[in-house]
Amino acid sequence: MVKEGMKNVVALESKISRIDGKKGELEYRGYSIHDLAKHSSYEETAYLLWHGRLPKENELEEFSADLAGRRRIPPEVIGPLTSLPDITHPMVILRTAISYCGSLDENLHEINPEENLCKSKEILAMIPTIIAYAARLREGKSLVHPRRELGHAANFLWMLKGSEPDPIEVEALDTDLILHAEHTLNASTYSSRIAASTLSDMYAGIVSATGTLMGPLHGGASQAVIEMLKEIKEGDLSAEEWIENKLDEGEHIPGFGHRVYKTKDPRAIELEKIAKRLDEKEGNDWTSLSNKIEKIVDDKLGLNSNVDFYAATVYVNLEIPDDFFIPIFAMGRIAGWTTHMMEQYKENKLIRPLQKYVGETEKEYIPLEER
Amino acid sequence: MVKEGMKNVVALESKISRIDGKKGELEYRGYSIHDLAKHSSYEETAYLLWHGRLPKENELEEFSADLAGRRRIPPEVIGPLTSLPDITHPMVILRTAISYCGSLDENLHEINPEENLCKSKEILAMIPTIIAYAARLREGKSLVHPRRELGHAANFLWMLKGSEPDPIEVEALDTDLILHAEHTLNASTYSSRIAASTLSDMYAGIVSATGTLMGPLHGGASQAVIEMLKEIKEGDLSAEEWIENKLDEGEHIPGFGHRVYKTKDPRAIELEKIAKRLDEKEGNDWTSLSNKIEKIVDDKLGLNSNVDFYAATVYVNLEIPDDFFIPIFAMGRIAGWTTHMMEQYKENKLIRPLQKYVGETEKEYIPLEER
Repeated sequence: MVKEGMKNVVALESKISRIDGKKGELEYRGYSIHDLAKHSSYEETAYLLWHGRLPKENELEEFSADLAGRRRIPPEVIGPLTSLPDITHPMVILRTAISYCGSLDENLHEINPEENLCKSKEILAMIPTIIAYAARLREGKSLVHPRRELGHAANFLWMLKGSEPDPIEVEALDTDLILHAEHTLNASTYSSRIAASTLSDMYAGIVSATGTLMGPLHGGASQAVIEMLKEIKEGDLSAEEWIENKLDEGEHIPGFGHRVYKTKDPRAIELEKIAKRLDEKEGNDWTSLSNKIEKIVDDKLGLNSNVDFYAATVYVNLEIPDDFFIPIFAMGRIAGWTTHMMEQYKENKLIRPLQKYVGETEKEYIPLEER
Repeated sequence: MVKEGMKNVVALESKISRIDGKKGELEYRGYSIHDLAKHSSYEETAYLLWHGRLPKENELEEFSADLAGRRRIPPEVIGPLTSLPDITHPMVILRTAISYCGSLDENLHEINPEENLCKSKEILAMIPTIIAYAARLREGKSLVHPRRELGHAANFLWMLKGSEPDPIEVEALDTDLILHAEHTLNASTYSSRIAASTLSDMYAGIVSATGTLMGPLHGGASQAVIEMLKEIKEGDLSAEEWIENKLDEGEHIPGFGHRVYKTKDPRAIELEKIAKRLDEKEGNDWTSLSNKIEKIVDDKLGLNSNVDFYAATVYVNLEIPDDFFIPIFAMGRIAGWTTHMMEQYKENKLIRPLQKYVGETEKEYIPLEER
């Protein structure tokens, strides 16, 4: 039987995260994401994913300082970033820059638990720097370099905006990154494990995952959500009319439905809370518009909102440019990708499915001049 | 049931190539690779894979000229190549440079048959240039730019060596590229299709595939073969002793065995012929050493040689540096990768398998200060 799209095929065993699609549950290493969203930090979540347990106080301190010390990107990588056309999508910049960072790593091809963890830290720490640099370069602003004394989320906002980050914004981004950190075997994670399964290097897998995440059917949805929200907000159509028009055109509404969850995405529940707090602080009303759309889509299609839906209202409040929504997704998901690659290396089996050939066979080769 | 390594899972239907592992047959679009190796050119093979049929004389002429006109890489891409450390593996350079070329493509995100074909041509035409530039830069030689009047294989040898290529060498490389052009769903090809399945861009898929191919369990074997041949040739141990030592250490012999072929790899049959011709021309005896090893491994393990085994003897005769063997593999395989991505886009279904969670659940979150 042909398993198109690998639907319902169990590809491997994993100890990293668990989804219960019927109950709407998501756990990382056994911990509910609601607990993590409320109590944890992105650094602690990365530690949890990589080490399989929560860190003690001194371990977390040491770990956070270690990450903070790895944020600078090699100077050679900055040059090429400056010569990109404005239209280049930041995910393409991120993919290229990560690949380039890998090409400068002298121990690139060493695969062992210690080296893998070291590379995971490097990549996780450098991604926010690449993203912030790319954003500022495009706007013609000078680069703002990382500050060691700031946490992961705070430092990113500092590098992006060049001003002291607001504590509520820091908390919002930190929680958002926790919620995006891991999500079992999706297309990008699977592609990173396929690279690992050939025993290729960690950068190869992360580059695969970054390129795969940016597809409109995968990480691209949050950008589509904000475009929808802005169109409705600034246009003449009511939310209901806008949605009816889209459905009449046979298009789907971004930010709704999920192949696994049959309930509201548990991450959307947490992101909605954050979005509301940010709205209040900024005097915006994105959440009420989002709530309205959510109700209409539920009434018309019976679909629930997913992670991308309220992520958009969080990012717009953080004044993150629309096309940087997917890079922020990658900035969170890097923890999960690296964890999956390390799990794959540990008990590796080359991933090589079969195909069913349905084309012609045994054709006679006719010489060029006789065709 | 957990389908680890996707062994025996039929992932999709395809009309591109067919393997009969028991009979040792490989066909591209219904044509035997023995016919193609004997009569075709790499350009014609790429046309066949992309269009599903052999070109007429004028079509092939136009197509070849089209490819030849796309060989120059954007000047921005050359700078970063010059600042890489000598130890950077050329596959990592290739991956980064392809990603960077993509970031300069203004129509990167347009996915339609015409654009896909255009991008396929661009990438296929530029890869040899990237590889040749990388090789010459590392050796401190000046760059040799592409020449339109030369065919795909001849032009690569020209750019690599900076001298008029020998007709026998051109034929050898051309046939080698044909034999590497396509091979159903392997790990790298599958990763390119996963990127396409999210509707990410063609460069994303090719970057994934390039990173995945370089793994020692995938494209990395031909480099391991030449290292073995050189060790035996230059060392004190006989071929038999060397192999026995490796087996005693629990290692496998590179270039032997295949998950699909139960016979000698049909590509190895053709590559052996080429290797012999090159040996005769160069006054080398790589093929006789290879034949000896092949017999020993068959006697001891009952394993047949695969594509990587005689590819190594071809490349060493072409004086290609050892770590450029995998890039040459990619230079051939790009035809297959792009064909698979185009097939995936055509009738797309997001590739998202499931996992079986085998870790802990419902753990209580203990506050940091109480751990």
